[in-house]
Amino acid sequence: MNVPTPSGDLLAPVLAGKARAIARLISRAEMGSPECLQTLAKIYRSAGHAHVIGITGVPGSGKSTLVRSFAQAVRREGRTIAVVAIDPSSPFSGGAILGDRIRMLEIARDPGVFIRSMATRGVLGGLARAALDAVDILDAAGFDLVVIETVGVGQDEVDIVQAAHSTVVVSAPGLGDDVQAIKAGILEIADIHVVSKADRADANKTVTDLTQMLAMGLPEISDKVWVTPVLSISALNDDGVTGLLVSLDKHRAFLHESGNISKRSRRIAAHRILMIAEEVIRERLAVDQSQVMQALLDRVLAREVDPHSAAVEFLARVNENASK
Amino acid sequence: MNVPTPSGDLLAPVLAGKARAIARLISRAEMGSPECLQTLAKIYRSAGHAHVIGITGVPGSGKSTLVRSFAQAVRREGRTIAVVAIDPSSPFSGGAILGDRIRMLEIARDPGVFIRSMATRGVLGGLARAALDAVDILDAAGFDLVVIETVGVGQDEVDIVQAAHSTVVVSAPGLGDDVQAIKAGILEIADIHVVSKADRADANKTVTDLTQMLAMGLPEISDKVWVTPVLSISALNDDGVTGLLVSLDKHRAFLHESGNISKRSRRIAAHRILMIAEEVIRERLAVDQSQVMQALLDRVLAREVDPHSAAVEFLARVNENASK
Repeated sequence: MNVPTPSGDLLAPVLAGKARAIARLISRAEMGSPECLQTLAKIYRSAGHAHVIGITGVPGSGKSTLVRSFAQAVRREGRTIAVVAIDPSSPFSGGAILGDRIRMLEIARDPGVFIRSMATRGVLGGLARAALDAVDILDAAGFDLVVIETVGVGQDEVDIVQAAHSTVVVSAPGLGDDVQAIKAGILEIADIHVVSKADRADANKTVTDLTQMLAMGLPEISDKVWVTPVLSISALNDDGVTGLLVSLDKHRAFLHESGNISKRSRRIAAHRILMIAEEVIRERLAVDQSQVMQALLDRVLAREVDPHSAAVEFLARVNENASK
Repeated sequence: MNVPTPSGDLLAPVLAGKARAIARLISRAEMGSPECLQTLAKIYRSAGHAHVIGITGVPGSGKSTLVRSFAQAVRREGRTIAVVAIDPSSPFSGGAILGDRIRMLEIARDPGVFIRSMATRGVLGGLARAALDAVDILDAAGFDLVVIETVGVGQDEVDIVQAAHSTVVVSAPGLGDDVQAIKAGILEIADIHVVSKADRADANKTVTDLTQMLAMGLPEISDKVWVTPVLSISALNDDGVTGLLVSLDKHRAFLHESGNISKRSRRIAAHRILMIAEEVIRERLAVDQSQVMQALLDRVLAREVDPHSAAVEFLARVNENASK
């Protein structure tokens, strides 16, 4: 019989930075297996040393290419890096994403680099929770930098990126208005802007647009005395990518010197606790659904009860059951 | 003093189809004002007659143009139509989206058409709840068709579209791989596929791709004996748009004749109740945050407690407080 290794046995090899154990524990976290919770709690206690970086940008922004070059730049400096890439996933999307992942493999043989792709639309929406568990695992495993790469559309993706110490928003020159509008939702969360494809003639315009937008004044955020840089990077331009690493180091130093790191860590932790609390409740609701939901549904479909009243009644019953 | 009209006073004019009252009640629902809940409950009891249609597609798919032509086609047949458009929104996105909305205004003077734009990323993530409240309001106001238009990226948007009786997924020819991958997540929820920009030379390839994908067999869904059509529509092609209306009518008839409508309505209602339940909890958590959260945060940041244990403890305290 094939008995799976208890998650607890993965703890020591994960803390020793063993890739196989890291990958397996991330898979357990991704599945939301209750068996691994105790191990994740221990992992959390050992984490907290990595610089957690969010890199986000709309599809076509050149984000994945940037992450690859960035990983190489980090390695040239002798530091280690792990990447958690959040993919828009579905049974049908495998093919399109595969190309990027294969290009990533070029650098994946180096033990100082760890790359992990996670699917969006997980069961019960636990993606953000699982992604942050993965960040803890990689942090505890000793990686110097842990990058969360997301497509930057959708609330989940924004939630995830907001859990980083430093957030990089990647913009490509010449994307259409529709795409720019979607991107707009994430522009304001950038600690560092990168304009990719800097070899293109229209890249300067994008740099100017972003710089002007920043000059217009972003929404006042009390903990921000940081002047958000706009970096121009071509995929082939190693200087640019090294400059991104320099900017990120500066941002980290800024967070610590200004004391903003504790405010930001507090905000990140509060957000994360709420996110997990919601997931726990979502699981409880799903479990209780069959018992309590059916009678309510009959009344809602007969339009005797509206969905809001039904939801409140549902919650009261679920709470009763939970406290029994 | 400017005392706001009680929501209850809006009920009669909404049921009579008065645009101003409809707009005001939707705004109340959007703000999540508790004052309007009782009115929304009454609205819900009067709703249930409209054909609710989800139209979704990635940015650049020509979705908004299609919705506009479709609205005109519906009006030519003497039926009425309301559109709830879910926009990716932020302080910075106003401009980009405005163009579409202005084009929409061309048809907005007709009382048989109602168009409402709603923002994404609402406070506490109540967008999906608010959007479905708006659908109820428009349904109760007597519109024959109520269209929910979303960008089709992100879990929220998918949640919203899945609340429709019939879902239309719009694909444009020649979009990049990245964009197609994002779209992939929504392809499987289509009851009807539309390939837009059919005047373009590469439109046929997109039609062929979609048809082949459908032939490969979508995930088995027990209630589906419906053969998903792939319609090819150019914005300038009135035949195509009328064909979409014909297909939607056929799909509605199919749902009723096959009895699938009750399964689908049940699934939609269950999903909606869970969604509202989550929002109610999120509100409770946010309210209780300051009282219970701070001490927990100190322990989490000192890494004495991990976020998952903190979340479970937090929920227990919130439940205690709620049952006091």
